[in-house]
Amino acid sequence: MPRIAIIGLGYIGGSIGMGLRAAKLRNTEIIGFDDWRAARSAANKAKAVDEVASNPRDAVDGAGLVIIATPPAATQELLQEIAPALGRGAAVTDTAASKVQIGDWARQHLPSGVSFIGGHPMAGDASAFGIEAASAELFQDKRWFISPAAAASENAVKSVIGMIRELGATPHFLDAAEHDYVMAAVSHLPLVVSSALFTMLRGSDGWPDFGRAAGDTFRAMTAFNSGDPSLTTEIAVTNREQLQHWIDRLVLELSRVRDLLDEEEEAVFREYSSAQINHAKFLAGDDLDPDAGSQPDLPDATSQMAALLVSPRLYDRVRQMTKRTEDREKERKLRGNRWGRD
Amino acid sequence: MPRIAIIGLGYIGGSIGMGLRAAKLRNTEIIGFDDWRAARSAANKAKAVDEVASNPRDAVDGAGLVIIATPPAATQELLQEIAPALGRGAAVTDTAASKVQIGDWARQHLPSGVSFIGGHPMAGDASAFGIEAASAELFQDKRWFISPAAAASENAVKSVIGMIRELGATPHFLDAAEHDYVMAAVSHLPLVVSSALFTMLRGSDGWPDFGRAAGDTFRAMTAFNSGDPSLTTEIAVTNREQLQHWIDRLVLELSRVRDLLDEEEEAVFREYSSAQINHAKFLAGDDLDPDAGSQPDLPDATSQMAALLVSPRLYDRVRQMTKRTEDREKERKLRGNRWGRD
Repeated sequence: MPRIAIIGLGYIGGSIGMGLRAAKLRNTEIIGFDDWRAARSAANKAKAVDEVASNPRDAVDGAGLVIIATPPAATQELLQEIAPALGRGAAVTDTAASKVQIGDWARQHLPSGVSFIGGHPMAGDASAFGIEAASAELFQDKRWFISPAAAASENAVKSVIGMIRELGATPHFLDAAEHDYVMAAVSHLPLVVSSALFTMLRGSDGWPDFGRAAGDTFRAMTAFNSGDPSLTTEIAVTNREQLQHWIDRLVLELSRVRDLLDEEEEAVFREYSSAQINHAKFLAGDDLDPDAGSQPDLPDATSQMAALLVSPRLYDRVRQMTKRTEDREKERKLRGNRWGRD
Repeated sequence: MPRIAIIGLGYIGGSIGMGLRAAKLRNTEIIGFDDWRAARSAANKAKAVDEVASNPRDAVDGAGLVIIATPPAATQELLQEIAPALGRGAAVTDTAASKVQIGDWARQHLPSGVSFIGGHPMAGDASAFGIEAASAELFQDKRWFISPAAAASENAVKSVIGMIRELGATPHFLDAAEHDYVMAAVSHLPLVVSSALFTMLRGSDGWPDFGRAAGDTFRAMTAFNSGDPSLTTEIAVTNREQLQHWIDRLVLELSRVRDLLDEEEEAVFREYSSAQINHAKFLAGDDLDPDAGSQPDLPDATSQMAALLVSPRLYDRVRQMTKRTEDREKERKLRGNRWGRD
């Protein structure tokens, strides 16, 4: 009977098992393994898989598709351990948040004849833990990035795509290096910022007062500290250089904002109304053409876009602020002229 | 008839009007004003106040309580304008997110015999705009900071406290300077960070790809760009120095994290598991005693606190990581000894 093996029965692995079981694949057996005994019995109880194996080699033995849903740091050892038990033609995929490092390990440890197709489902609540939080619907209507190794067979890629579709998600091909570059920016950096903000304020002299006064803004911006620290750690460690690049960039950006606060109010308003308008465009999906980043993003009183995307009151204020800037400019010129005449 | 005046009929002012009307105060007339014509008719339509005045002086004429809910930048001019129309014994309060600057203006412009009690309701969705989003229940069970001027009369303070309680909120006394220090950290800094993160990534070469790949983490961490840029601007301008202080601190913190990523995995894990445990303590309200900030915050394998606050799996991992660090230390000492013997 065709066999699918899931190694790692936590939140993601458990949800994959439940989703595949719910899909009622014909003549397919889903075998799971987790190196943590409590996770194995929880998976059994939750019926997340058809059967739980007692070691990873037994789980992958005879499997056409192997899904690795362990923390990335455990993956290298695991690949070495299962390599001898993998059958020719097997497809191996994973669910880690960075792809280059794991692709390298797969190249190093998997036998020829076994295809590696890196995977990254864009799903899941960052503060969820373990199989208790798992759900068959977790991947419904979500994106799932895949980065097949150069040597991966067409059949193996098809098999991974089939699994993703059975789970209700949409596969997106993305080169591993490109994936890690993009994820460092839109996922790993925000996680690190959420943590830095919390850790800094929590460690400062004002803390107990800060904690008591904290409202929705603080809570939302630091919420990602509830996530599994193993994941954050492994993201940081397996995508270190990209992440450091973006931390450096953000430090520069914050320094720019710091200096901007010394400018006149209109300049500060221009900064935040630009951000508001660009964010509205982003949310409307209207900012994603290839030239968007380089387009002028200043709110313009006469712009149709601005009128459509912001409230009438804000639109009025943009006009008023633009006028104030112009008046100030005129006054400066006038004063310059007067001085010229003196 | 006792009169309450509300100047500024947007999201906050409109909600105050609706809440006070819902409280059915006996023999009390609620008069509103907004310098934006469309807001005046919207407030009329929404029945946010009993009557809309055509200028701010008429609105405050004879009012025992005046609530200023305009953007802070408009407040100075407004205080000058209404000062001659304010009756002896009147209480004036506001709703701005910073308190020192506005307190200074009130001292400068309000006549003696009029009491200023700065106010800041901790309520409202940062992305809500205008009276269309207003609600009589907005302040229910929320905190409302008040910073009375030194010269404010007891009666005036009582009148503001009464209004806050009628709206279902809880008044908290906080010195204006202390308020601004705390808010810069827990509210203004997170807003500025949310914007810097979005603006940096949106302005970078990778943008259209970033926008397309953005998942829940990016969306949550940049959501505050949907807020009213006038508010963000005025927060930045009226609380500039405190905000700059915290930006500087965050830059240092990010630089620390950047360097930490060069360390061994255990150190990175220690950082994020500390953050996770401290965050769980914060969410549990268990981290707010005066010494919390100075307590050791490292996850300790033998700590009861750690066992209670984290999942069993994480607890296991903390132990495993602690053991790895210890083993590494032992090995280092052993190696050190061997070299010593050579």
